[in-house]
Amino acid sequence: GETIRATLFPGDGIGPEIADSVKQVFKAASVPIEWEEHFVGKEIDPRTGSFLTWESLESVRRNGIGLKGPMATPIGKGHRSLNLTLRKELGLYANVRPCYSLPGYKTRYDDVNLVTIRENTEGEYSGLEHQVVRGVVESLKIITRQASLRVAEYAFYYAKTHARQRVSSIHKANIMKKTDGLFLQCCREVAEKYPEIQYEEVIIDNCCMMLVKNPTLFDVLVMPNLYGDIISDLCAGLVGGLGLTPSLNIGENGLALAEAVHGSAPDIAGKNLANPTALLLSAVAMLQHLGLQEKADQIHNAILKTIEEGEYRTRDLGGQASTAEYTNAVCEHL
Amino acid sequence: GETIRATLFPGDGIGPEIADSVKQVFKAASVPIEWEEHFVGKEIDPRTGSFLTWESLESVRRNGIGLKGPMATPIGKGHRSLNLTLRKELGLYANVRPCYSLPGYKTRYDDVNLVTIRENTEGEYSGLEHQVVRGVVESLKIITRQASLRVAEYAFYYAKTHARQRVSSIHKANIMKKTDGLFLQCCREVAEKYPEIQYEEVIIDNCCMMLVKNPTLFDVLVMPNLYGDIISDLCAGLVGGLGLTPSLNIGENGLALAEAVHGSAPDIAGKNLANPTALLLSAVAMLQHLGLQEKADQIHNAILKTIEEGEYRTRDLGGQASTAEYTNAVCEHL
Ligand SMILES: CC(C)[C@H](C(=O)O)[C@@H](O)C(=O)O
Ligand SMILES: CC(C)[C@H](C(=O)O)[C@@H](O)C(=O)O
Repeated sequence: GETIRATLFPGDGIGPEIADSVKQVFKAASVPIEWEEHFVGKEIDPRTGSFLTWESLESVRRNGIGLKGPMATPIGKGHRSLNLTLRKELGLYANVRPCYSLPGYKTRYDDVNLVTIRENTEGEYSGLEHQVVRGVVESLKIITRQASLRVAEYAFYYAKTHARQRVSSIHKANIMKKTDGLFLQCCREVAEKYPEIQYEEVIIDNCCMMLVKNPTLFDVLVMPNLYGDIISDLCAGLVGGLGLTPSLNIGENGLALAEAVHGSAPDIAGKNLANPTALLLSAVAMLQHLGLQEKADQIHNAILKTIEEGEYRTRDLGGQASTAEYTNAVCEHL
Repeated sequence: GETIRATLFPGDGIGPEIADSVKQVFKAASVPIEWEEHFVGKEIDPRTGSFLTWESLESVRRNGIGLKGPMATPIGKGHRSLNLTLRKELGLYANVRPCYSLPGYKTRYDDVNLVTIRENTEGEYSGLEHQVVRGVVESLKIITRQASLRVAEYAFYYAKTHARQRVSSIHKANIMKKTDGLFLQCCREVAEKYPEIQYEEVIIDNCCMMLVKNPTLFDVLVMPNLYGDIISDLCAGLVGGLGLTPSLNIGENGLALAEAVHGSAPDIAGKNLANPTALLLSAVAMLQHLGLQEKADQIHNAILKTIEEGEYRTRDLGGQASTAEYTNAVCEHL
């Protein structure tokens, strides 16, 4: 096969260490990927309105694929959040987060195996807010037919291509009858094209109660932006937290940006203590997206085995291993 | 002491049965309350715009205190949800839901003991929505200084008078900088008046992850309307569901309406199978609110003991007892 060029944003804080871990594992597994590294800039690039440089975005656009470590949004005025800049500039319309129990890493929940698919561009994240009069402010939630259909299409396509049985659309249309109502309407339209996939609608408050009582009731969940933000973190919590869950952002024409969604943990940065699992699993999701299923499976199994054996767990999982020791163990399990 | 008049809405479905259970327990405990019963109407009352009659609302206004069973919003056009009508017409600005592990009723979580306090009148529940152009709809989230200060005041007052240590304000002000920003600003202003109560701010997605990982990290949580809707149900799920958790709505001048927030369960209505615990615990919250602490404690302990012993649990808790058998057992434990 040919070598694939992929953009890598190591990010801030623990980002470079965990990115090194991915590079090492990919090398050990002979993954045919050549990284094109880009760093968060030191000044605001007027073309992006953020600390992300235009060149770094161009790199993802050109390669069509990328991996991103945690980025701390630097403090300052008049610039956009790095995450929102990426979603907007790259048109990353769906955020996909598989969430499953890791064998051997015990939490309160067993056999969790679900996927949240979040609309990533509009809804409560419109950025449209204003003060009506002093002491009265409003935010606009925008739902469009176009974005709702697009994410619903992706959710059903994902369910079908990943041998999933059911798509649950999460909403609060009993209150937001027009916005969430339109979202549901779009999901229903798409559902009709996939008669082999079950379709249900669950109100968000009830969904959260069901998730904490019995998460195995769910399979694929699709929802507007803010509900996805909330529910994906809740689900990550069920299986151990954001340090263990992958995330993949999907754009048009197959473009995808995988990312670790946890923070940059500046307190332990540079100390060889960070857990690279979320970034490794995100890199696996990237390989799956590229169709490199064999390499993806190989690395995925090595990660799971390392965690299951328990000898080389990082501190956040109750172990003693350094980032390097854990990474070496994953490589040995390849 | 004197007899206190309180309004009772038995509600629909299982409502009358579980309301009977409360009446029986109150009688057995010699609670000095005389019930004024009102039922959901059969037609829309033009003065309330809903199936709730004006007279029934007048009853709560006059008595200043009430207890409400589940109400199924009848299907039809041009009327408001019963829950929203009650909140709006009675000015129920705060919804208080204590959430604690019931001794002897095992869930995945032990020692949960927190209280969610939800702004109950505005935010995402403004009802203001419209279609901008075909395929583009928007909903307005409204946050006002007045309602935010009022619910924050209540949260700190509640924390202080219930020997709680900390208030956490839940928000998404990193995205909704103006609306949730105003909410936070109001919480901070009130926090300054309560130096003995710790104050922290937690982003909603992170809060949900922390809640499922370790709910004992939280004490009192205060938040805008929709976040309260979501988080209160999530928390109920941690300790067994809405069938076991009380709820109290607070209005001006001491007015309060306690309610079971679960559904009306039409499938088991009239079959003597319903679990009256949520309504009983809500009735206990009502007594506490009235200052009848001794009666409240007595009934509360009888409920906990009955559930702990396990002999007379209802079916939803894995037992065999009927509503009447469970209620009798509670009375015997008084
Ligand atoms: C950091 C924040 C802006 C972001 C979001 O709210 O989307 C994060 O929570 C996420 O889920 O990626
Ligand atoms: C029934 C519904 C309108 C209501 C709400 O969304 O507030 C319910 O979920 C609640 O929490 O009381």
